[in-house]
Amino acid sequence: VGHRVVSVQPAVGPPPIAAAVSRIRPRDVSAEAEAARRLDDLTKPPGSLGRLEELAIGLAGMTGVAAPIFPRKAVVIFAADHGVTAQGVSAYAGEVTAAMVANFLAGGAAINVLAGTAGAEVVVVDVGVRSAIPEPRDTKPGVRARLVRARVRAGTRDLSIEPALERPQTEAALEVGLRLADELRRAGVTIVAVGEMGIGNTTSASAVVAALTGADARSVTGRGTGVDDATLERKVAAIERGLARVGPVPADPLRVLDEVGGLEIAGLAGFIVGAAAVRIPVVLDGFITGAAALVAARLAPALPPRLIAAHRSAEPGHAAALDALGLDPLLDLRLRLGEGTGAALALTLIDAACALRDGMATFSGASVPGPVAG
Amino acid sequence: VGHRVVSVQPAVGPPPIAAAVSRIRPRDVSAEAEAARRLDDLTKPPGSLGRLEELAIGLAGMTGVAAPIFPRKAVVIFAADHGVTAQGVSAYAGEVTAAMVANFLAGGAAINVLAGTAGAEVVVVDVGVRSAIPEPRDTKPGVRARLVRARVRAGTRDLSIEPALERPQTEAALEVGLRLADELRRAGVTIVAVGEMGIGNTTSASAVVAALTGADARSVTGRGTGVDDATLERKVAAIERGLARVGPVPADPLRVLDEVGGLEIAGLAGFIVGAAAVRIPVVLDGFITGAAALVAARLAPALPPRLIAAHRSAEPGHAAALDALGLDPLLDLRLRLGEGTGAALALTLIDAACALRDGMATFSGASVPGPVAG
Repeated sequence: VGHRVVSVQPAVGPPPIAAAVSRIRPRDVSAEAEAARRLDDLTKPPGSLGRLEELAIGLAGMTGVAAPIFPRKAVVIFAADHGVTAQGVSAYAGEVTAAMVANFLAGGAAINVLAGTAGAEVVVVDVGVRSAIPEPRDTKPGVRARLVRARVRAGTRDLSIEPALERPQTEAALEVGLRLADELRRAGVTIVAVGEMGIGNTTSASAVVAALTGADARSVTGRGTGVDDATLERKVAAIERGLARVGPVPADPLRVLDEVGGLEIAGLAGFIVGAAAVRIPVVLDGFITGAAALVAARLAPALPPRLIAAHRSAEPGHAAALDALGLDPLLDLRLRLGEGTGAALALTLIDAACALRDGMATFSGASVPGPVAG
Repeated sequence: VGHRVVSVQPAVGPPPIAAAVSRIRPRDVSAEAEAARRLDDLTKPPGSLGRLEELAIGLAGMTGVAAPIFPRKAVVIFAADHGVTAQGVSAYAGEVTAAMVANFLAGGAAINVLAGTAGAEVVVVDVGVRSAIPEPRDTKPGVRARLVRARVRAGTRDLSIEPALERPQTEAALEVGLRLADELRRAGVTIVAVGEMGIGNTTSASAVVAALTGADARSVTGRGTGVDDATLERKVAAIERGLARVGPVPADPLRVLDEVGGLEIAGLAGFIVGAAAVRIPVVLDGFITGAAALVAARLAPALPPRLIAAHRSAEPGHAAALDALGLDPLLDLRLRLGEGTGAALALTLIDAACALRDGMATFSGASVPGPVAG
């Protein structure tokens, strides 16, 4: 059997996002100091493993443990459709979203390969796909993928014409993510990489980043999965129409999701807040997850030190999101696929950082002389 | 038992470097085209896996096989000492070279951890260590490391005072590398990552890069394993004295090795030429291996397309070497350790690229619609 289906129950009572926001703590500086001391005793010049050492220290601060290990990892992919695809903003038809969800469950997508390499399970969340998910066929043996059915709405409305979401839908999508983070923590997941699938979602993400940073639409809009010049012009025009309704950067970040957001972006924002609240390190993927993290950071200003940016996407809006978050990505491999592929690659760097921390000899243990002068 | 000892026999007759140079072929464009076709049929937008796709294509061209696999990998570390350490150019004493070789054989170094993660064996080549290699103690279980004893000379002479090597020594070190590449090929190694160990070797590498590119000594000299300002000044002065003997960029790249080279740099240059001659892809590490590759490329102008630059080191001379080679590194993690650590990390990216190529579904196989317009 290739996948299990788990339902997330609808919320009862007011959304607990504020409670989760209030539980996000600064990183644990004493765990970080202890991690740094251990690293400096290993048989290498101090700091010579560069960002791998920074990772080991940062993970100590995020978890509150000097030498955390991550035996159970998950790549969590939020999937949803976008009404704005009616404007012809993508090189792919909307039904590809549902087909790719089926591909994730069958184990045939890039993220299945890279999650397998990283030793991570794949969790796909249907938070707003428009059409039925086709029954997966030819499921690969040993696939570790499951579907969470939590569809809030069958895709957003067309953000170029009207608000993408009504507030209760925005809140419901946030809460799907928030509750899933808690469920995964209870199941023993120790680190999460986030990804997404949604034809048209670079249009929404560009609009979200522009609305939250005040950037010009064109400066944060790219070619997504590979659109031509005419499509790019339609995409910019659609975003500008949506942004006209938002007006100046709003104090309430949820207004941005209502007007120009996506259900997967809202779900991701809730999930990121929820994971940070329970001290699970969050590895961001590319542009869409970066836009979601920016929404989450506007809800929870203490969030960014608990995020790891996996890679710099080829999408121009990603740099703007990372700048606003103050994050420096680990990889720059010109990936522009999404799904969590860059984040899954970063999980292997995280494993390498932990393995170095735990597997190397110390100067005294190996009889290697240390530096001559401090 | 933690390691085996294998001897490389001294050369008989003239060095076969010229023969190896003449065997280096351009990359196989038909294998590359076939690899690109396969990648475009996978369930992802064309090219969206960025440099991972470029890697899969490049490896096809290097090996002449559309979908090469790399079941046996080796990290090959050339170790040697440097007479210029008498000038006080390093933060570490010269005996650290031999102690670290023992650490590699015992499995306690960073490269042992990362080679293990990458599924690679470690081969350490003593091509010019000054002192006896201490008997490894506390060897970790399961260490896959062996020592090749091929010491040409007990360290170089002090390049700031006199030529570092005599020509027969330079040639002997080149040949150690050349022969080892052939030995590894016959043993079934399919891809190699190169690394080095040698206290003082950033001084030699800076001098080599300056001598071969005509760059100013200061512009290609950095802090190595972490020297202070006064040491950096001594280092630049030592390099300038060596460069004064070299004069303008010489037509014969071996003259640069004679005057300011290192035995591990010469060994690496021979090894890189030898691996390329037998179509084994070569993954470079940081600054020292980049300097060695630059020497190799001056001997064999067809070489650079057969090299993969793993990472951009924090050393300023590395960028000059990569520019001269026309290589764009995969990673930028501010590593400055050497040993092959960055190259071992790149091996895991190479495995990921091959796994994606072989493990993903095709559009037709997964019933996923392709792009709407081309």
